[in-house]
Amino acid sequence: MVGKKDKPLFTPGPLTTSTTVKEAMLRDLGSRDGEFIGVVKKIRGRLLKLAGVSQSQGWEAVLMQGSGTFAIESVISSITPPEGKWLVVINGAYGERLLKIIERHGFAVDAIRNAENELPNIASIKSTLAKGGFTHVAVVHCETTSGIMNPVADIGAATKAAGCVYFVDSMSAFGGVEFDFEACQMDFLVSSANKCVQGVPGFGFALCRRAALEATEGYSRTFSLDLLAQWRGLEGNGQFRFTPPTHTLLAFARALDELEGEGGIPARAARYRKNHESCVTGMRAMGFTEYVSEDLQGHIITSFVYPTEDFDFEEFYDRLNDKGFVIYPGKVTKANCFRIGHIGHLFAEDTEMLLSAIREVAGEMGLSLA
Amino acid sequence: MVGKKDKPLFTPGPLTTSTTVKEAMLRDLGSRDGEFIGVVKKIRGRLLKLAGVSQSQGWEAVLMQGSGTFAIESVISSITPPEGKWLVVINGAYGERLLKIIERHGFAVDAIRNAENELPNIASIKSTLAKGGFTHVAVVHCETTSGIMNPVADIGAATKAAGCVYFVDSMSAFGGVEFDFEACQMDFLVSSANKCVQGVPGFGFALCRRAALEATEGYSRTFSLDLLAQWRGLEGNGQFRFTPPTHTLLAFARALDELEGEGGIPARAARYRKNHESCVTGMRAMGFTEYVSEDLQGHIITSFVYPTEDFDFEEFYDRLNDKGFVIYPGKVTKANCFRIGHIGHLFAEDTEMLLSAIREVAGEMGLSLA
Repeated sequence: MVGKKDKPLFTPGPLTTSTTVKEAMLRDLGSRDGEFIGVVKKIRGRLLKLAGVSQSQGWEAVLMQGSGTFAIESVISSITPPEGKWLVVINGAYGERLLKIIERHGFAVDAIRNAENELPNIASIKSTLAKGGFTHVAVVHCETTSGIMNPVADIGAATKAAGCVYFVDSMSAFGGVEFDFEACQMDFLVSSANKCVQGVPGFGFALCRRAALEATEGYSRTFSLDLLAQWRGLEGNGQFRFTPPTHTLLAFARALDELEGEGGIPARAARYRKNHESCVTGMRAMGFTEYVSEDLQGHIITSFVYPTEDFDFEEFYDRLNDKGFVIYPGKVTKANCFRIGHIGHLFAEDTEMLLSAIREVAGEMGLSLA
Repeated sequence: MVGKKDKPLFTPGPLTTSTTVKEAMLRDLGSRDGEFIGVVKKIRGRLLKLAGVSQSQGWEAVLMQGSGTFAIESVISSITPPEGKWLVVINGAYGERLLKIIERHGFAVDAIRNAENELPNIASIKSTLAKGGFTHVAVVHCETTSGIMNPVADIGAATKAAGCVYFVDSMSAFGGVEFDFEACQMDFLVSSANKCVQGVPGFGFALCRRAALEATEGYSRTFSLDLLAQWRGLEGNGQFRFTPPTHTLLAFARALDELEGEGGIPARAARYRKNHESCVTGMRAMGFTEYVSEDLQGHIITSFVYPTEDFDFEEFYDRLNDKGFVIYPGKVTKANCFRIGHIGHLFAEDTEMLLSAIREVAGEMGLSLA
């Protein structure tokens, strides 16, 4: 039995995945079973390879149960010494979330904010760091709030010049965007199973510079989200400390195979870029406009401004849903937007079908587009 | 395509699940999709129904991403006031884990320990609580370390007589053991998706007395594992605060249907009891003995003592594995044991086949059994 044909998800995740990725879950493996331990080991190695690094070069991939936010909290709550101080670079809701997590654990923190359609100001970051006292810097890679792509290499250079530990939330970018991981000078990067690798949701992962990870002994504030202990468990006997989502991991292993089969990150990024470009071209032709300017916009997700002041997004969403297409509400605070995602097991023809459906819905709703 | 025929898992989880439960994962639903929100709502209601309670009676089911341990830490780190003090009742490794989580968060705590094959001493619990100062009591329901079933109703009575909040880790018992939930006077019970409900791993859940939950405002020590915020999210718009394991939840909804179809907890408990009884009968006939005495032993998992001093468990495990059966290592500290689980989509014939395989392996290894 193969599942029903589900609506394509033009969202930032959970995503549409391939049938074969889902079928990889039709097995029950014991979490201490040799075969399963082999799967976990392979996943950890392959994640490093995606970043162009390896264990022998001093890198470690640590898998953490839960959503991507759990993996982020795992890093923040596990790597901060009691006297640590964070600088969080914010231009969207996911940057604000990093700040909230840091604050929840009572760590010292300052934030630098830019508008949701503006890049972080590197000069401000440098001058703030120059004041001293900071030990850690955090930023979001692709701010899924707007779709803007942040300059993680430039921020990395500023962070390292100030001698700080560098943490990047690359949740929606890793695996779907080409970037030189080593040149970005990250110490910790987090992403999750159900983003550009196109697995199903259930765990996140951190790529960690081993020396930076090993320096965090005694820092963890929690038991479950203890990054160092999790790494030691995975390295020790190859097992998770606590029950892993075995089926989700089998799906992820398959998803990594399929990413490799597609041609790795360059090929996947090219497909997503094409999804994004045809979407934007079609939407503009209908009179929609993007919230973020073209030069700052990534190809992961795009925010479109409401076409009229009285635009009824709920009706628009429901009508598209009835036609079999799932889009996403907006998240920026300063403008009314909705979002269309370009990642997942979606191809040019899916985007074209979405655009046709949007054209129909615009007609049904009598939208007067430019 | 249906998955390979996997080895039956005679373990405490991840378990063998039905093919139809796994096939429920062959879909990609958006986490904000109306259909998915309906699934989550149904799951939450059905969990309460399994306990014989309802929202209108003042109960709430809160789902939490991650393994069961994450759900436990969610409860402990979210319901303890700064001035709180726990009493942890311990007779195994899972009780020790409760203590470790409490300690990690720096809460005041005392522990009462009994041997791993002994019941907690109710008189000691009462006299300790009578000294005053305690606000919360925690105990494990079925101690999976040994398989012993703890007297959660008696401990509940002592806890309530002392005016404390009562938390029970019913991870491996809930759904597979008949007990009068309300009579046990629990305020919080935790279990997980991949135990007796026979779903796949990826989330845990807490059944919460609403008044006790609402009294925890401001207590949570973490962002991701914030029980009150998670409940408010689920009640507010029906969504998880952070990406849920959508596929795991679809499997769990199906698993709940199958539990009901089997005849609910009484029928499932009867099947597990039969698995347990035939296992013990067969193992005894071969000369194996249980670690826990018969009157204290639950039907979830059984610890068997190594038959000889030089028993090579690794060889025993590997040989059984080669024949297609997965058993579990021991966890008790005072004796060399291995464990056989009785839960999951396993039936009398599976147990008989396991016993045949053990007989063969015992012969191959030349085990001189009594």
